Amino acid sequence: MTSAFKQADHPLLAIPGPVEISDEVLLANAHPSVSHVSPSFVQVFGESLKLLKELVYSKSAQPFIISGSGTLGWDQAASNLIEIGDNALVINTGYFGDELGNCLSVYGANVDHLNSEIGKSVPLDKIRETLKEKKYKMVTITHVDTSTGVLSDAKGIARVIRKSQPNALVVLDGVCSVASELIKFDEWGIDVLISASQKGIGAPPGLSLVWASERAISIHENRKTPASGYYVNWKRWIPVMKAYEENKPAYFATPPVQLVFALNTTLKSMLRNKDCSLEKRFEEHKKISKYFKKEIQSWGLKQLVNEERYEANGMTTIMYPEGVKGSELLPKIAKSGIVVGGGLHKQVKDEYFRVGHMGETVVNDQIRGDINKLLRTIQECLN
Amino acid sequence: MTSAFKQADHPLLAIPGPVEISDEVLLANAHPSVSHVSPSFVQVFGESLKLLKELVYSKSAQPFIISGSGTLGWDQAASNLIEIGDNALVINTGYFGDELGNCLSVYGANVDHLNSEIGKSVPLDKIRETLKEKKYKMVTITHVDTSTGVLSDAKGIARVIRKSQPNALVVLDGVCSVASELIKFDEWGIDVLISASQKGIGAPPGLSLVWASERAISIHENRKTPASGYYVNWKRWIPVMKAYEENKPAYFATPPVQLVFALNTTLKSMLRNKDCSLEKRFEEHKKISKYFKKEIQSWGLKQLVNEERYEANGMTTIMYPEGVKGSELLPKIAKSGIVVGGGLHKQVKDEYFRVGHMGETVVNDQIRGDINKLLRTIQECLN
Repeated sequence: MTSAFKQADHPLLAIPGPVEISDEVLLANAHPSVSHVSPSFVQVFGESLKLLKELVYSKSAQPFIISGSGTLGWDQAASNLIEIGDNALVINTGYFGDELGNCLSVYGANVDHLNSEIGKSVPLDKIRETLKEKKYKMVTITHVDTSTGVLSDAKGIARVIRKSQPNALVVLDGVCSVASELIKFDEWGIDVLISASQKGIGAPPGLSLVWASERAISIHENRKTPASGYYVNWKRWIPVMKAYEENKPAYFATPPVQLVFALNTTLKSMLRNKDCSLEKRFEEHKKISKYFKKEIQSWGLKQLVNEERYEANGMTTIMYPEGVKGSELLPKIAKSGIVVGGGLHKQVKDEYFRVGHMGETVVNDQIRGDINKLLRTIQECLN
Repeated sequence: MTSAFKQADHPLLAIPGPVEISDEVLLANAHPSVSHVSPSFVQVFGESLKLLKELVYSKSAQPFIISGSGTLGWDQAASNLIEIGDNALVINTGYFGDELGNCLSVYGANVDHLNSEIGKSVPLDKIRETLKEKKYKMVTITHVDTSTGVLSDAKGIARVIRKSQPNALVVLDGVCSVASELIKFDEWGIDVLISASQKGIGAPPGLSLVWASERAISIHENRKTPASGYYVNWKRWIPVMKAYEENKPAYFATPPVQLVFALNTTLKSMLRNKDCSLEKRFEEHKKISKYFKKEIQSWGLKQLVNEERYEANGMTTIMYPEGVKGSELLPKIAKSGIVVGGGLHKQVKDEYFRVGHMGETVVNDQIRGDINKLLRTIQECLN
């Protein structure tokens, strides 16, 4: 492609997803039309599937790249694994736990919610106790709830589930954590990981990204009743994903070719980057998150997340100081060229706002300067 | 955006979708990150919904723009409108009729197929007779079956259905016809129209585009049993689409922002184009299709579609002449810089190949010269 393509000045997008996208990835999203079964595309799709496994340190997961919003991943887990009457437990840290529970119910699950206090995750002891009371087919963890910015200890919780109920499927909602928080799919014993393209991964929205363990695939394949749903049914996608991974074309539904080029570009920038390993990427997210949170604390601001161990590394939820209204502050920040997000947790949504710091904004902060621009602007708008 | 963006020379994509995309639309697909609830995006989304109605001459349809492949539109129709045990009739002209039937079955429909002969659609008389035998909740028409290039008389068939069974829902699969064939949604009495972004519409793949009549929405809203499926459930999308159309933000699942910019750009190029009205666009597709088909006929080539009234205007299916194998011809054409598609109809897939001529390739043929390049190359490769 001949191109002097460059994003002109545009408002800095600092919501917890979609996030800023690099020129390189945006340009890949403008790739000329290519057949979805052409050798060049098949190679890119196959490579992307392999890179997705690397991203979560997995050798055995079956990755799925499917046209859809992140939400479609919930349907994938529910439709393919739940049968009517199955018990499911949602470890719930906000809005996205509520809705994930609703999705599981639609597919016939009896859903229990184990709710955290607002701004916290659920302590391991409490999860252990709950798991003593009832057998579950599936237990879900929202790794980072985008509505609250609460980080759950996915590794610790998965261990508790595996120990208490070895047969329960561990489903990790990583929509707001994959590529900004460390996830070790195989080692932690995750069965289904759900994500999307537009957050930590740093591509445009439009891809539902899911990883399934061999155990999950086998439970899907040995269902007693057929899975409901046609488009989301893994039976149709597994042969397609396997073919692409082996560099062979296959067809079920037309993949979003340009988005796959964009995904491939961003995955390579994470996993084939001599200047920044995956480990360093996670360290950078931690470092910048700590710096950002410390700064706003130093101005006397409080966070919705009120224990350090529950602080997500890709976003921060900030309580409005007394006398400050969101309906005044956020437009002011927007006027200064930065877009942050309003509150989303039903009970307290008017009391806080959300700032995303993931991907480009973090990894290329030294060049871009997004973080200090963010801090400076928020501070100025508060004064 | 500052940009001297230009697609470099790339193989001419002449399959029946995805198709060639204009620089303008590709560049829109590289739009910088924008919040899905920001005023600028809400306006673009809302406008796109209105333009989608114009595209099919509808005042009353409820349009849906949802992240997903075209296939997801089948799930939308099936999941939202079918209840277990409902009768559905598929007027079947190829692979995509077979699969649409499978999708309806998954959602509990008793599906009958009224199969055409290969290369033909089903005559109206035969449809009339079939509709006398059994009551149907839904009758589906594949407007152009991408596997065979057969065009069905959607207007005539819809009239027959409405007359024979006024309560049956008329579902038109327009994945391979919207924006390359005339569709009058309201006037023809269509209840659900299903399409996708990557064919006649000329955007990248990744959007499931659906239009539903007031009657279809009302049948959905008055179901006896809840619709299965969470992501595809119109109950969640209707308020979102209505809000965007009224220029208000709303949230259910993150829309694929860049693809919506691309969609908006291509829709405006069709509907706000002083040099080419929508009517002229359809005329151009007819004219070029006739020219293309006449040329190949003049070389002694036969089409899979063997009656003129069943010839699609956006694609042509060509039988291999005696002694020519697809496994030799298609790679030869590809080597010459043009990508055409292999056969797809189960029974005859090795006997023909498929050429797409939709959108850019047609509307800007005078500048691009795609059609004569196509003809010249196919002819050279055959000799």
